Amino acid sequence: MKTYDFQSSNAFVELFEIAPYASGTLDGLCFAVKDNIDIRDRFTSYGSKPWREAHPRAAYNAVCVEQLLMAGARCVGKTIADEFTYSLDGESYFYGTPVNPRAPDRIPGGSSSGSASAVACGLVDFALGTDCGGSIRIPASLCGVFGMRPSLHRISEAGVLPFAPSVSTVGVLAQNLPILRQTMRVLLRSHDVAVPPVKNIYLVKEAFALADPAIQNALSECITHLGNFPNVTVASVSLRDITGLDVSLKSCNEDALRILQTAEVANAIGGWIQENRPEQGPNFQAGYRNVEQFDRSTMSDALNLCEALFSRVAAFTQPGDIFCYPTAPVLAPKKGTLTGSNLNSVLDYYDRTMAVTSFAGVARLPEITIPLAQVNGIPVGLSLTAGHYQDEFLLDASLHLWGSQPVGLDLCSVTT
Amino acid sequence: MKTYDFQSSNAFVELFEIAPYASGTLDGLCFAVKDNIDIRDRFTSYGSKPWREAHPRAAYNAVCVEQLLMAGARCVGKTIADEFTYSLDGESYFYGTPVNPRAPDRIPGGSSSGSASAVACGLVDFALGTDCGGSIRIPASLCGVFGMRPSLHRISEAGVLPFAPSVSTVGVLAQNLPILRQTMRVLLRSHDVAVPPVKNIYLVKEAFALADPAIQNALSECITHLGNFPNVTVASVSLRDITGLDVSLKSCNEDALRILQTAEVANAIGGWIQENRPEQGPNFQAGYRNVEQFDRSTMSDALNLCEALFSRVAAFTQPGDIFCYPTAPVLAPKKGTLTGSNLNSVLDYYDRTMAVTSFAGVARLPEITIPLAQVNGIPVGLSLTAGHYQDEFLLDASLHLWGSQPVGLDLCSVTT
Repeated sequence: MKTYDFQSSNAFVELFEIAPYASGTLDGLCFAVKDNIDIRDRFTSYGSKPWREAHPRAAYNAVCVEQLLMAGARCVGKTIADEFTYSLDGESYFYGTPVNPRAPDRIPGGSSSGSASAVACGLVDFALGTDCGGSIRIPASLCGVFGMRPSLHRISEAGVLPFAPSVSTVGVLAQNLPILRQTMRVLLRSHDVAVPPVKNIYLVKEAFALADPAIQNALSECITHLGNFPNVTVASVSLRDITGLDVSLKSCNEDALRILQTAEVANAIGGWIQENRPEQGPNFQAGYRNVEQFDRSTMSDALNLCEALFSRVAAFTQPGDIFCYPTAPVLAPKKGTLTGSNLNSVLDYYDRTMAVTSFAGVARLPEITIPLAQVNGIPVGLSLTAGHYQDEFLLDASLHLWGSQPVGLDLCSVTT
Repeated sequence: MKTYDFQSSNAFVELFEIAPYASGTLDGLCFAVKDNIDIRDRFTSYGSKPWREAHPRAAYNAVCVEQLLMAGARCVGKTIADEFTYSLDGESYFYGTPVNPRAPDRIPGGSSSGSASAVACGLVDFALGTDCGGSIRIPASLCGVFGMRPSLHRISEAGVLPFAPSVSTVGVLAQNLPILRQTMRVLLRSHDVAVPPVKNIYLVKEAFALADPAIQNALSECITHLGNFPNVTVASVSLRDITGLDVSLKSCNEDALRILQTAEVANAIGGWIQENRPEQGPNFQAGYRNVEQFDRSTMSDALNLCEALFSRVAAFTQPGDIFCYPTAPVLAPKKGTLTGSNLNSVLDYYDRTMAVTSFAGVARLPEITIPLAQVNGIPVGLSLTAGHYQDEFLLDASLHLWGSQPVGLDLCSVTT
């Protein structure tokens, strides 16, 4: 892998140094912050230069930033976010495309594109991101780093620009599991309560079926590894087994998550966009047209379906249970291919990817992606997901399952 | 009780009519909306005229407003909120003081002051409010109406101006328990899942001890009533019994809730206030001085304490358990008495009231206040609180415990 520095990674909007405010469990670690999260005396762009120019500098640090500084970590800069964080591709019209160092001709994924790139390039120990329909998990998986979306709203969102409150969370991308665990425990304010041992690992059938065959193959050794733990049962389940409902992952996305996202994004930025008609990139413009033309009367059914899925998944999930599936069903697409002239590629990327990410989204679950495999050198992540509020269990379980292995892209590789 | 109309109640910022978008379980009901919640094509003032003048009309309805309109309810106006919703008194510098119809010489309580007044005056069936440190529960209790703060973030906050995300929620004030239940079930998107029977009612000792003796006396018949249900145990517990921690309600407030509120309010409005230096009422100005002078390094400990309290309360609470205590430890103060020249009265009102409200606040619990008593005609509310996400149980339990009684101010009255 070629090495990249702070400039050549193109991961950063701005570089600076904020020394830790105190000493703590994150002493010695350095981090970057996605550019939709406030840092005092600096602009927050939300991925849009017109937004950045129209708004004053932040008066205060976001609470999550302050937690990290108080725990001993050092902040080194703000990372590029997709425009209004409304994208999974990471090709910013305003700020360019952060490097995906293991596959430099491919996109890093978004919307926490710069955070994933900064971690993948080895420039920071970890980075803050936000995730609604996969904005942490997808770039982490495509760039081959660790990433966690926690249970919905377990981390304070004060000082984080609002997006879609029914689904959006703050989370972390990191170099390895111990750093991810340590950092998340600061943000989650975890206490030393006992977590159960891993009992059942449920492979979510539809999520595997949605994945490219090369990804299924690349992950097969990892699944075998999971079967080798004593007292751990590995079993395949369908979404129907889990929820008792005749529902697909495609429907989780199209009939719940995407409708809520579309409706709530309009609440967050629609007024400002109507009032200011700011310059927009072509991809955002195309996506935002859906927001403007959206029929909000579909929202009630989407809210109801989302709540039903949440409560059914919660009722199914017992202490010690984990769901497992490929984080992204596709390899990182080549740069420049997700454009209006390749509409089928765009739809395939978003439809399949968000079908998979919508599971944790609608069920408000914590999910960790682990960079366990590769296809021709292109990273492939495996996701572990636990019950609502079982974030500490999920972190410990991930370490238990992969901590004694040389976790990273060397473990399971397939060359096609 | 003297009757008040839409004008004389002084509950409303603006009157209008939005017909239901569809027919549903709220057919025939009309509601009002607190003025920090967006209604399409109308200004949202956040309780501040300068804010109202500086911001465009809302482009979309808040999601919660749309849920109610889709379920058959009719919207009739926006209600007065305290300045930036940062108050519990309901005396707005910009919009005046909504009437507390049962005690017209007294404050209605805030910050959902207009919503409480509109319901108490019988002008609407229910009203939307928001609650961080008691902004639904306190005005509901002081005005003698029903009010519910749900589990943290169970209702979508899209289109609701942010306040303190670690504690703030959207909720409802209503004429009676069936309307409260029906409305909350729409917003919570409740499904027909079985709820447990009421098993234990825990009277929270410190909350009773903080209450004026007249309030304790006024509620004693209600407590006796709770003891008459077969298979229901009524027992007094201390916060130490519940949490295993050597902590008081005063500390829940002063060392957790108020610190988080102060820190996060700064994130929400600090930048705008620094940039614009808007006209402010004297009470807000005095309160906001604390925000500006606040030492944010205290936040980490407050976040940790809040999380510890949340997880300890969650571990204690079993299916069927309810906590019970006076909603407000004081009677509604006389109008005009909560000013800088009466600093001791102000401190006593806020310190005692928020000590009680902080219990559900830090533990993210749903709480319902029921107008069960009076002292010399001045309303007194009793609160029932259930475990995290046990909102549907709490609604059904409240109906079970009080539904067959003539719930309201006639039940338990004490004249001193």
